[in-house]
Amino acid sequence: MTKQRIGIWIIGAWGGVSTTAAIGLLSLQKGLTGTSGLVSEHPYFEKLDLVGWDQVVIGGHEIRETSFVEAARHFSETSGVFHPALLQAVEPELNEFDNNVKPGTLIHVGDTIRSLAGDSVKQYDQESLQDTLARLSADMTEFQKQHDLAHVVVVNLASTEPPVEESAKALTLAELKEKLASAETSPVPASALYAIAAMNAGCSHLNFTPSAGTDLPALIELAEEKQILHGGRDGKTGETLMKSVLAPMFAHRNLNVMSWVGHNIFGNLDGKVLDDPVNKSNKVHSKDHLLTEILGYKPQTLVSIEYIESMGDWKTAWDHIHFKGFLDTKMSLQFTWQGTDSVLAAPLVLDMVRFTEREWRRGNRSGVMTHLSSFFKSPMQATTPEFERQYQQLEEWANTVSEE
Amino acid sequence: MTKQRIGIWIIGAWGGVSTTAAIGLLSLQKGLTGTSGLVSEHPYFEKLDLVGWDQVVIGGHEIRETSFVEAARHFSETSGVFHPALLQAVEPELNEFDNNVKPGTLIHVGDTIRSLAGDSVKQYDQESLQDTLARLSADMTEFQKQHDLAHVVVVNLASTEPPVEESAKALTLAELKEKLASAETSPVPASALYAIAAMNAGCSHLNFTPSAGTDLPALIELAEEKQILHGGRDGKTGETLMKSVLAPMFAHRNLNVMSWVGHNIFGNLDGKVLDDPVNKSNKVHSKDHLLTEILGYKPQTLVSIEYIESMGDWKTAWDHIHFKGFLDTKMSLQFTWQGTDSVLAAPLVLDMVRFTEREWRRGNRSGVMTHLSSFFKSPMQATTPEFERQYQQLEEWANTVSEE
Amino acid sequence: MTKQRIGIWIIGAWGGVSTTAAIGLLSLQKGLTGTSGLVSEHPYFEKLDLVGWDQVVIGGHEIRETSFVEAARHFSETSGVFHPALLQAVEPELNEFDNNVKPGTLIHVGDTIRSLAGDSVKQYDQESLQDTLARLSADMTEFQKQHDLAHVVVVNLASTEPPVEESAKALTLAELKEKLASAETSPVPASALYAIAAMNAGCSHLNFTPSAGTDLPALIELAEEKQILHGGRDGKTGETLMKSVLAPMFAHRNLNVMSWVGHNIFGNLDGKVLDDPVNKSNKVHSKDHLLTEILGYKPQTLVSIEYIESMGDWKTAWDHIHFKGFLDTKMSLQFTWQGTDSVLAAPLVLDMVRFTEREWRRGNRSGVMTHLSSFFKSPMQATTPEFERQYQQLEEWANTVSEE
Amino acid sequence: MTKQRIGIWIIGAWGGVSTTAAIGLLSLQKGLTGTSGLVSEHPYFEKLDLVGWDQVVIGGHEIRETSFVEAARHFSETSGVFHPALLQAVEPELNEFDNNVKPGTLIHVGDTIRSLAGDSVKQYDQESLQDTLARLSADMTEFQKQHDLAHVVVVNLASTEPPVEESAKALTLAELKEKLASAETSPVPASALYAIAAMNAGCSHLNFTPSAGTDLPALIELAEEKQILHGGRDGKTGETLMKSVLAPMFAHRNLNVMSWVGHNIFGNLDGKVLDDPVNKSNKVHSKDHLLTEILGYKPQTLVSIEYIESMGDWKTAWDHIHFKGFLDTKMSLQFTWQGTDSVLAAPLVLDMVRFTEREWRRGNRSGVMTHLSSFFKSPMQATTPEFERQYQQLEEWANTVSEE
Repeated sequence: MTKQRIGIWIIGAWGGVSTTAAIGLLSLQKGLTGTSGLVSEHPYFEKLDLVGWDQVVIGGHEIRETSFVEAARHFSETSGVFHPALLQAVEPELNEFDNNVKPGTLIHVGDTIRSLAGDSVKQYDQESLQDTLARLSADMTEFQKQHDLAHVVVVNLASTEPPVEESAKALTLAELKEKLASAETSPVPASALYAIAAMNAGCSHLNFTPSAGTDLPALIELAEEKQILHGGRDGKTGETLMKSVLAPMFAHRNLNVMSWVGHNIFGNLDGKVLDDPVNKSNKVHSKDHLLTEILGYKPQTLVSIEYIESMGDWKTAWDHIHFKGFLDTKMSLQFTWQGTDSVLAAPLVLDMVRFTEREWRRGNRSGVMTHLSSFFKSPMQATTPEFERQYQQLEEWANTVSEE
Repeated sequence: MTKQRIGIWIIGAWGGVSTTAAIGLLSLQKGLTGTSGLVSEHPYFEKLDLVGWDQVVIGGHEIRETSFVEAARHFSETSGVFHPALLQAVEPELNEFDNNVKPGTLIHVGDTIRSLAGDSVKQYDQESLQDTLARLSADMTEFQKQHDLAHVVVVNLASTEPPVEESAKALTLAELKEKLASAETSPVPASALYAIAAMNAGCSHLNFTPSAGTDLPALIELAEEKQILHGGRDGKTGETLMKSVLAPMFAHRNLNVMSWVGHNIFGNLDGKVLDDPVNKSNKVHSKDHLLTEILGYKPQTLVSIEYIESMGDWKTAWDHIHFKGFLDTKMSLQFTWQGTDSVLAAPLVLDMVRFTEREWRRGNRSGVMTHLSSFFKSPMQATTPEFERQYQQLEEWANTVSEE
Repeated sequence: MTKQRIGIWIIGAWGGVSTTAAIGLLSLQKGLTGTSGLVSEHPYFEKLDLVGWDQVVIGGHEIRETSFVEAARHFSETSGVFHPALLQAVEPELNEFDNNVKPGTLIHVGDTIRSLAGDSVKQYDQESLQDTLARLSADMTEFQKQHDLAHVVVVNLASTEPPVEESAKALTLAELKEKLASAETSPVPASALYAIAAMNAGCSHLNFTPSAGTDLPALIELAEEKQILHGGRDGKTGETLMKSVLAPMFAHRNLNVMSWVGHNIFGNLDGKVLDDPVNKSNKVHSKDHLLTEILGYKPQTLVSIEYIESMGDWKTAWDHIHFKGFLDTKMSLQFTWQGTDSVLAAPLVLDMVRFTEREWRRGNRSGVMTHLSSFFKSPMQATTPEFERQYQQLEEWANTVSEE
Repeated sequence: MTKQRIGIWIIGAWGGVSTTAAIGLLSLQKGLTGTSGLVSEHPYFEKLDLVGWDQVVIGGHEIRETSFVEAARHFSETSGVFHPALLQAVEPELNEFDNNVKPGTLIHVGDTIRSLAGDSVKQYDQESLQDTLARLSADMTEFQKQHDLAHVVVVNLASTEPPVEESAKALTLAELKEKLASAETSPVPASALYAIAAMNAGCSHLNFTPSAGTDLPALIELAEEKQILHGGRDGKTGETLMKSVLAPMFAHRNLNVMSWVGHNIFGNLDGKVLDDPVNKSNKVHSKDHLLTEILGYKPQTLVSIEYIESMGDWKTAWDHIHFKGFLDTKMSLQFTWQGTDSVLAAPLVLDMVRFTEREWRRGNRSGVMTHLSSFFKSPMQATTPEFERQYQQLEEWANTVSEE
């Protein structure tokens, strides 16, 4: 099967991660940057014959009024990333990408996210649920047609929603369909609506956020029915990546972790949204559960995420791990991680889109892509919580695919 | 095959790691401590039916004049480990272990180690090489007989020797045998002499130090000839363990490590010996090579090990890892590891002895035990430098063994 | 004037700081420990002719049922301080100190502290406010008589109370007296009642806690009327000491502090009490205000104090200071402080008692001792928030006193 | 006395600190940056009526072939400081400053520095010592005349020389003069030659480096004879600043510092020069002595400075301070300082020039300016090693001057 042009449709298109992904993609197309941080560029995956960077177009949904260039400039000023010369070099193409950005939806996003919304999206406040779903889906289909794309991968990069309600988790596919067809208020959060719209449009779906997305029983069923590839949740970029790498060490040396304290500070838009306790609870849960899974017991844990404006996109995490060694001797490990959140996340989005397109090209069109587990904090249907074993699954998948 | 009593014969018997192993072993026998830090006590290895703690006796070679209790008291005072009550509870048995300690040899140990030697070992200064080898071997055999032991595992825990000379690496087994039979000066360092003595006595051999031990072509051949199980080199306890865990994360996220700086400070006897640049060079090399192996390229590296008296046995390592992410953005990770060196090392010694005995009981009597790679900084014949993959090899071995 | 025996009457007598002070005092009396951590033992203060350690007796009020030895053992086990041999050597004298400990009062201490109370203090639940005050005062007077003490210094080391009510701050001395004479419920919190009892008994008063103590207008007036020396609030031992030392550096280099984040974790009884948000708010305020005072503007600040059981008395603070240098360049300083809270605080209690006795012996019997500002987080009537300038005030006082 | 235009003549004019000072000065002149990091802009010093930024011109000596703009670009690329827009805005004036830069001298600078030299300076390789001195002096005088400057302050910012020889320290002024008049090889290092040239030209002199400069008995005498204001040595910008701030805290809490380990990594030109052990020894000494001065005893210390290329101008220092508190309890403080070396140093240069001009304008024309002690690691004739007390001396000087 020949490789053809593909599209990335991003929910939260003018956000930090998306903007970085767009700038990065264009820089790669123009040969202006190296391939650091791109997993799919690791020599191991050369054999996969992945889609080339020049075959990729970006579009998406957004609720704020801004543009790629404006977002990039703000980001560059507050966080000191993106050299102005680089930004200038890709400005024309960024402006073109802006044409691919359409208003999303504000259904069930919570007050904090709503407060960021612009008029373009608010004009749909009175729209019926059925019309919203149809509109979102049509935007994706239109994007695919207009750019003559073989396939579109929808990626959710929007700010974290409040936790999903139990009623949404309890829905069967039949119940979901019924409610979607007739109900006045949505039975599921915005992230799931975007996912349903993606499935209706025949797009693959990746959920890089802690929001529900496709991680609801009814949506998993729907993906099978519609023959959709999907994966999620919550990109694993910094402190949690470290946890999934370090916790196995303690487990496999039988060092008893008594407490694991993690404090995260950062100052980007994501941080502002997480300053709302409702949105934060969703995030903290996603960062906390894997220690118990890896260690086999629950140490005392503490995870804080605090908005410190001066940090901009630089997320600094300090972790203090207190553990008991032989003869019950108490010892400790501390680490400080200083990384740009969006710059860590953006390449993983591009990587996953390439791996997803490869799986789709392979002919597999349905189900959770568990070989992408290493990219997520809470990977759906994962068989192991340990980073290295998850990464080995990606290698094994690559071996299988390349031998076909 | 029934489990029977086994012996651990330690080179450097009254050193910090050995003393901690002895106290730990006795505490386990008396139920006075938990199993934290013991890999072999991980639930995964229950199926292996390992030898019980009450079946193990300790003896060994030593060049200083002291005793287990004296060493333990000094250690307790300078480093605040071993609760005095615990020490008191195992004192009688420690005194008995003292009877199993015999003078070692000072051949090729370097000036710094020699300066620590007592009269008991100096009386052998004029002994011929052939007599030394015979004496060391006889000590081990005598230990086995006296305590009615099914098997003895010799473990080298002595202070780091100066680097081995190229001539020793070039020796064939035939040349080695010839020189050992007739030469006046030893063609190999002390660590290799102890290993040869162990092989002659039919003991398994583990080299927990950066010294050469069995990691010379001629000795690897000899082990095959004599049907001896062996493994080494250099126990992986702190900073290097962290490196073998963290470097794969950078590799598998394709994050370009530009520089990795590691500073280690500690104040125990080992540190004093390493303050001699000749001995230190051996150690630093052992800590440095694996980054290149894991990453596939050589970042700028710096490893320092400094003797700071006030630290006692508490080894504190500060590492600064400077890496390049997407769009060539520079980020960093720092960690501070605060662990008691001997307390981290001692349980691994006990673990490896148990795993070795299990392999020996299984009937395998020859060759490098590569399934023990995860325990070593520079594992002989290792197929991967990554900790997690090495640990998986231990799991796989356990699966094979338990299914027999 | 001749030096004579003096007494320290501690509110919270069997707490961690008090127990450490008692063990330390006895160890000093017996020559079993050095003088590290004792400011009053700095060579600079030799000229002051301070009271000798063998002239000091300890007693106090307490609400829990325990003893010095029991508290010390618990502390030694959870935090690894106090060598068992040291504890054993001072046990008989600690037991004698127990005889000097009397039940305190539970008035206005909040639910968390109340939940720790024993029967001895609960028997006074129905006691009238007037009887309570008389009883507390009588305990102090009785202590002084029984041990033939020239002077008694009352030191509040009890757990942090909930913040004081505005009504208490608004009281005049006349109003306070009227209410104390007739009211059914106390117009002031427990810490102030202890202070009033101390004044009635002619004792000096030091408030080492964030609780109100003598830091209320009516009590400051009362101290003048009764001719009482006093000082407070909140001993400056760890993270805040660091702030009062580092913030002047940023101020005097005109480096603009954008944010200062401080996370504290520890696991002693104090930490448990502070886990109650009501009690914590009092503490956090005390740690936060001084940055603005020193810098002259308010950076974004964050202070967290979290109870992590495994830490025991070891308080670990991680601070991240983000500042702007020349050309608006963002830079950072991080520090990790690892100290035993009680071991840091206890010597300061002994120091301040000695300095207070010296001031009292000098003939000054009234007012806030501002030369003790360097010991407190929120020093009453302080003329500068900077540690070094506060310390210079202590030196200047010492110069004046020694020249008299 | 009216304020008039002044000049800064920098030894090492195209180095990192000088370039940053030049860009900063021009940015201040154009109102393009704030005043963070400038001590002289602290509100406390408003009363001093310091010279305005628009009254200052920069020139100097240099041994390499480059330019301000080229140096700035390199710096901007390797270290991510100086926003390109800022650089562009001041480019014309930077180019003008280039005209004020003249070739220096290579006498006694050591092999590493010599290897950086360009042809412009090498043309003077055969010049006699007497001609060199006359030439350097004439450059300064010419600069003053050409720009119509009331006064010129010479500031040494050149890379660290090898340590000064004992013979240079032993010289009397008479001996020095004699040798300068007739000798073939210089009796003093390059830094002293520049200082002598400055004095001959009637310029004030500041030595921001660890090199000898005016800190030789004969030069101190010469400054008095020539009526020259001077100060030095070695700007206190990062780790040592921290030491001079933190060590007093330990001293004044009587906490016994057992060991103080400091590791510095950075990757600028200065770092490359310090990679030469000869040059480094000079630097390390300058960083190490003040602990003993402040504490009153010598703890075990370790200072390393290592060239890590990826760090660029970002100097990261990790310090581990191990101290003994009450009851001989061991505790620790660690800090990590992450600052741009040149950006920290440059404003201090501008500050000191302003303070020096103010002292000169006041009519004082002779001697070491001890009120500038807080700016130096090894301040000449300082009366206290503590930062805060040194800073108080600056405040006191400002009070005196402003009251005149």
